[in-house]
Amino acid sequence: MPRYKLTIEYDGTPYSGWQRQDNAPSVQQTVEEAMERFVGAPVRLRCAGRTDAGVHATGQVAHVHIDKDWRTDTVRDATNVHLRPHPVTILSAEFVPDTFDARMSATRRHYRFRILDRRPPPALEAMRVWHVPYPLDHEAMHEAAQAYLGEHDYTTFRAAECQANSPVRTIERFVVMRQGDAICIETEARSFLHHQVRSMTGALLPVGRGKWGRRDIARILKAADRALCPGLAPPCGLYLTRVDY
Amino acid sequence: MPRYKLTIEYDGTPYSGWQRQDNAPSVQQTVEEAMERFVGAPVRLRCAGRTDAGVHATGQVAHVHIDKDWRTDTVRDATNVHLRPHPVTILSAEFVPDTFDARMSATRRHYRFRILDRRPPPALEAMRVWHVPYPLDHEAMHEAAQAYLGEHDYTTFRAAECQANSPVRTIERFVVMRQGDAICIETEARSFLHHQVRSMTGALLPVGRGKWGRRDIARILKAADRALCPGLAPPCGLYLTRVDY
Repeated sequence: MPRYKLTIEYDGTPYSGWQRQDNAPSVQQTVEEAMERFVGAPVRLRCAGRTDAGVHATGQVAHVHIDKDWRTDTVRDATNVHLRPHPVTILSAEFVPDTFDARMSATRRHYRFRILDRRPPPALEAMRVWHVPYPLDHEAMHEAAQAYLGEHDYTTFRAAECQANSPVRTIERFVVMRQGDAICIETEARSFLHHQVRSMTGALLPVGRGKWGRRDIARILKAADRALCPGLAPPCGLYLTRVDY
Repeated sequence: MPRYKLTIEYDGTPYSGWQRQDNAPSVQQTVEEAMERFVGAPVRLRCAGRTDAGVHATGQVAHVHIDKDWRTDTVRDATNVHLRPHPVTILSAEFVPDTFDARMSATRRHYRFRILDRRPPPALEAMRVWHVPYPLDHEAMHEAAQAYLGEHDYTTFRAAECQANSPVRTIERFVVMRQGDAICIETEARSFLHHQVRSMTGALLPVGRGKWGRRDIARILKAADRALCPGLAPPCGLYLTRVDY
């Protein structure tokens, strides 16, 4: 009974998120049903990062047991055939030992957030970027965001419904740069709290407009008070890009 | 009666192309109807490059007369309001002299073509790239494509229904490079024949697979025989990115 590690890309727009829901389409259900059609038996996936409704992935990771010993290329290609026409694709399938757990074994998660800061709305990247209709100072955002780095109590940047035992996390990297027309944020940590990347991104908006500086970010972080977070960036700009093990 | 130059971005997927059709949605009709709702009178656009069905633009240019002397920002913003929810957006509006003609005054057109050369189909970039399910040698494609440069009779790379008087054009630039997962082609000329970029791109596929070299590209170009073109790349990978005046 081999265990496979799957790397998965998806457009989160039509989904209620990764996790199965009783009455809404999810990425998990979409992939499980595609695999079940090809293996002929129930399968259950467990992923590295349960993305929210509308959040995308270019490198989500999940593990799965399959009774029969299929070739990894067959697992990838046959699942992809049955995934059509859903906007979900298996990038790779690999054998992993039974001790591998997509969620528990992960040592680092990488997220990207994209902002289109221009007045005209996006035509080609609708639902792929956060559209902010005025220019933002990405250098000021980068400078202020360095206050996020290190080990902190991130209560300010944590959803009310977050189920983690502790609000303490360690942000290893938070980079804000310009890529063509868009601003691209890249961040890495062993794990993130619920809504943490979107909250940290939302808090940089007043920085990008010149109203806040690094001291304001440091202040609301230190206060550990959710009410001080100035806003939550929308899910459509967020991508889970990579998980390290 | 001022004349405006509009720069336009669109997702070509839902359209039969730029040009108005009696029984199919077009980009031209979509923009004209949005402008008519705001100026309260019929308007007629004339564009730099009549893109085919499914072809995108990040920098299409069109000109238009409007009876009233609106501010350029108002023309852009009001048209964009009325364009929603269509995947078309006015990036800018500028005053131009009455001698300006979006089509006739253009001195150079820039196109981009994107190819995703990997086995799994695209989830996030469906209808935004040409999916080729095996790896391509982009360096060999670049080298062979240099045979396209200069002034030639491009009959081999011209649609049967092309209405241009002459098959002679001058390709000023043709670059094939890798950008992340995708191959990106950029080409420039004063003007292109109908289907020329898609035909020149399609002819590079056997080069990317190692079956053809630069000599084969030079041979079919010199033959000036449409039957020798090995294939037409699909419209979904093509973008009109810029027009110079």
